[in-house]
Amino acid sequence: MAGDGEFDFIRTRLLPLTEGDPAALGLRDDAALLRPEPGHEIVLACDSLVAGVHFLDGDAPAVVAARALRTNLSDLAAMGARPRAYLSAIAWPEALDAPWRTAFVDALHVEQRAFGLALIGGDTTSTPGPLTLSMTLVGEVQTGTAIQRSGAVQGDEVWVSGVIGDGYLGLQAARGDRPDLPGALPGSLARYQAPEPRLGLGQALRGLASAAIDVSDGLLADAGHIATASGCGLVIDPEAVPVSATATAWLGSGGELATLLTGGDDYELLFTVPAACRDRVEALARHGDVALTRIGVVQTGEGAVLRHRDGRLMQPGKAGFTHF
Amino acid sequence: MAGDGEFDFIRTRLLPLTEGDPAALGLRDDAALLRPEPGHEIVLACDSLVAGVHFLDGDAPAVVAARALRTNLSDLAAMGARPRAYLSAIAWPEALDAPWRTAFVDALHVEQRAFGLALIGGDTTSTPGPLTLSMTLVGEVQTGTAIQRSGAVQGDEVWVSGVIGDGYLGLQAARGDRPDLPGALPGSLARYQAPEPRLGLGQALRGLASAAIDVSDGLLADAGHIATASGCGLVIDPEAVPVSATATAWLGSGGELATLLTGGDDYELLFTVPAACRDRVEALARHGDVALTRIGVVQTGEGAVLRHRDGRLMQPGKAGFTHF
Repeated sequence: MAGDGEFDFIRTRLLPLTEGDPAALGLRDDAALLRPEPGHEIVLACDSLVAGVHFLDGDAPAVVAARALRTNLSDLAAMGARPRAYLSAIAWPEALDAPWRTAFVDALHVEQRAFGLALIGGDTTSTPGPLTLSMTLVGEVQTGTAIQRSGAVQGDEVWVSGVIGDGYLGLQAARGDRPDLPGALPGSLARYQAPEPRLGLGQALRGLASAAIDVSDGLLADAGHIATASGCGLVIDPEAVPVSATATAWLGSGGELATLLTGGDDYELLFTVPAACRDRVEALARHGDVALTRIGVVQTGEGAVLRHRDGRLMQPGKAGFTHF
Repeated sequence: MAGDGEFDFIRTRLLPLTEGDPAALGLRDDAALLRPEPGHEIVLACDSLVAGVHFLDGDAPAVVAARALRTNLSDLAAMGARPRAYLSAIAWPEALDAPWRTAFVDALHVEQRAFGLALIGGDTTSTPGPLTLSMTLVGEVQTGTAIQRSGAVQGDEVWVSGVIGDGYLGLQAARGDRPDLPGALPGSLARYQAPEPRLGLGQALRGLASAAIDVSDGLLADAGHIATASGCGLVIDPEAVPVSATATAWLGSGGELATLLTGGDDYELLFTVPAACRDRVEALARHGDVALTRIGVVQTGEGAVLRHRDGRLMQPGKAGFTHF
């Protein structure tokens, strides 16, 4: 079901985003037709982003496009998959005029090129509600090598990529809620506006990590997801968690570390590795483009806890993050 | 990004919908992991349904669930694919309470069982706007056998399955807009509430149909899509188009045939077949569960037209259908 406006938009604006990928069938058909690489499995991640829920109503088209692709790519990264293509289902509110839509599609094009993606399908429709984007990312991984959340075992060590804290603080910056920290926030803001999916790291962790997840609900909550899926307990040392420069400044002015460890949206990879393989992770960190830090251990028990080296538990007010 | 409510909903309500399909990874992971059948291609169809746009605000949960799956399955049918699984991205408005959501998921379960589908991923989120459902349907088809829109050639004959008209009239019935035809409408209403994706027919047409599409934008508009994709013209005889019992009654009371042929949402298959294969289509019609009717021919030229046998053109006011 579509009006002429939709067909024009698809033909003039979206068709270039297929990059000539034969799977897209020129966006003329009812569906995309994907020929899998022999010996590979297909990885499918599908998340919706709603204006006012997953991004701010006033966010620029480029921010919305970047977050829509990158947060979904982060899911592929956590499984060690190589991204290949995507389908976009876009529900446009009338208030977003043609220039906004064009800017959004142009930004999507820039983003997808950065990740070697092609648009292969989806639809556009109107909505009386907020802009709603459902992206279905299609990745591939050699059969049997995908990293899952369920493989952590007692004795494994817990690692995290990059730094934590910019997810939470960047959102505050985007909302204009942190006038007390104007100088330190641009770095965090950039991380909110264009999170970095750790695709190269995810692929390098295949055959090494026993479990992995991307930090989207908050480091503690996501550690809990691995614990639940793996049937064990994760103990995280809060002092060991690497925090960003902005976060360091924020903590110095009275901010609570627990807030950052439950604040979500960092899109770093949290993963577990057998202790015997520690040197391989350290080699990855030396030769890769992102720092890797050991922050805890896998034990018997259930769930995830933050425990200082002296044994004290850090009790966050709330584990997890329910949007904003 | 999710709150505890989402996790509970996924674990208690959505997990049973995976039917134990290993691709779902227990809905615990960041993405689904699909092992393609050897020698098959993956077919991916993704469409959004927005309350008030693709279904009525007051529609029952069972109607919304049926339309969400069936209209997307119809896209797979048009390509001759066998449906296998789906991902659902659901944006819930607060106004839809827990009983509504439970009834919706229960209905989705009933529907997916009727089509042998398993839920393998997706997400749920909140929205300040209307209920928005993005379904990504995953199908499989033997490599090289998918039917596309682009294969029609001059001399082919144009066929349609089932009957046309219930899509338009069923919507009027659902809206309560046809009090003049109370007795004749239940059949149309059922077709609006639960369109029948022609999956068996679509698979049977592989290797026989040169092009196919499902009638969702309106018979004339969808014939135009085949014409454009194939670089030829489709000439449809309006008198040959099979109309439903409800439509026959409606035409008898002064309704315009052109309205039904541009009214959309019938979800029948419109397809082209070489004239030399007419007997094979007739055999399919005899042994299948749906009528197949020859309604036109493929010629040189472009676009689709409705032309009576005496040469007069039928000029609809509007080719196509822009939701409601």
